[in-house]
Amino acid sequence: MTYTLVLLRHGESEWNAKNLFTGWVDVPLSEKGRAEAVHGGELLKEAGVLPDLLFTSLLRRAIMTANLALDAADRHWIPVERSWRLNERHYGALQGKNKKEIRDQYGEDQFMQWRRSYDVPPPAIELGSEFSQDADVRYAGEPIPRTECLKDVLGRALPYWDGTIVPAIRTGRTVMVAAHGNSLRAIVKHLDGISDDDIAGLNIPTGIPLVYELDERTLAPVKRGGTYLDPDAQAKIDAVANQGR
Amino acid sequence: MTYTLVLLRHGESEWNAKNLFTGWVDVPLSEKGRAEAVHGGELLKEAGVLPDLLFTSLLRRAIMTANLALDAADRHWIPVERSWRLNERHYGALQGKNKKEIRDQYGEDQFMQWRRSYDVPPPAIELGSEFSQDADVRYAGEPIPRTECLKDVLGRALPYWDGTIVPAIRTGRTVMVAAHGNSLRAIVKHLDGISDDDIAGLNIPTGIPLVYELDERTLAPVKRGGTYLDPDAQAKIDAVANQGR
Repeated sequence: MTYTLVLLRHGESEWNAKNLFTGWVDVPLSEKGRAEAVHGGELLKEAGVLPDLLFTSLLRRAIMTANLALDAADRHWIPVERSWRLNERHYGALQGKNKKEIRDQYGEDQFMQWRRSYDVPPPAIELGSEFSQDADVRYAGEPIPRTECLKDVLGRALPYWDGTIVPAIRTGRTVMVAAHGNSLRAIVKHLDGISDDDIAGLNIPTGIPLVYELDERTLAPVKRGGTYLDPDAQAKIDAVANQGR
Repeated sequence: MTYTLVLLRHGESEWNAKNLFTGWVDVPLSEKGRAEAVHGGELLKEAGVLPDLLFTSLLRRAIMTANLALDAADRHWIPVERSWRLNERHYGALQGKNKKEIRDQYGEDQFMQWRRSYDVPPPAIELGSEFSQDADVRYAGEPIPRTECLKDVLGRALPYWDGTIVPAIRTGRTVMVAAHGNSLRAIVKHLDGISDDDIAGLNIPTGIPLVYELDERTLAPVKRGGTYLDPDAQAKIDAVANQGR
């Protein structure tokens, strides 16, 4: 017997479309993003992969993606739990900045280091500044970051994975995690045992359910990398890799 | 000190617009219903009534209303719990039937008895028929009805009210219940101590948050009937009373 896990990256947001660093800024889905979410739900329904339990971040682009996808899959009524530990990587002082301008200003090497290095975070965001979350009530009392590298994302996501999501998976229910490019990369790195170097090359497309069958004893993926419920997934993966160009 | 409770009836559904008895049939919101939901959320935000915790039925018109309203109020990230015990009244064999046709066929007295009597349910729905929920996985293992009068709705909603919602209210969090005309009438009957006869005259408009301040000791409403966050609520209450005419 195996367990079933579904990972779903949110559809395009208004800031994806504008090519801005988003991080924890709580921007809405674009119209294209809403359509991606509905399509993702239709893929789940067609494949007969029906989530029994949903986990989301605290950001509306992931929450709305899950809401729309589950409605399309006729699973809008399942229980849901949310945590900031599934939030996108905090992009520090880059939040709200244009990706192309940052690349032009700091050069390709620094740009790619901030985007893809495993352990070098961008500069910390200034407390009280326009795109900081330090006064946001949803995070009150939580040890939230002011910037993060991917290693930091793993550091705060894995306690939630191990302590909350894994126990839910082990009940035998089909679990869906609706989250973000980097929080899902953190989970996939952990699941597939990807090295700190190789994770830079992993991209997750938006709005396409990624299904893992997990060994019931070890929780190791039966198929490394899982299975996307969309034959065009590779083209969308390439599109993510080219962001900011 | 008082506790704050928000009741929100879902916006217009596609079957409200078609004048069909809906009950447990899981129809989507109409476009007007989605706009009502967003407006309801804007009213919450303007009034500074910000839910900390959401309860919904298992039906998409209530779930989507809550999703859209909370997004508009910037509270999409709060925890949510769902139960079939907050579902609309089960309309039995009338589910899927046109209200005007039923009124013409059975006469005004029978029509109004089925719609508004406290303790006379419509005929039970046939198991396995088009608009029955007996094979719906979301209710698997639950003691679900085949028809209900309002008294029956109280009988299955109050255990959830007392056992789950009241304990949440007593933590001091602002609780929102997104549900249906009759499950909310059941809660209001209980809260305001309305008699079995008088409840027939109580109508709850769609999409307008109804806010109760509750005494922290007795949970009695500080103001009987609560307060609608919309100066035009009475006109909308009258519109509900005239449905099926």
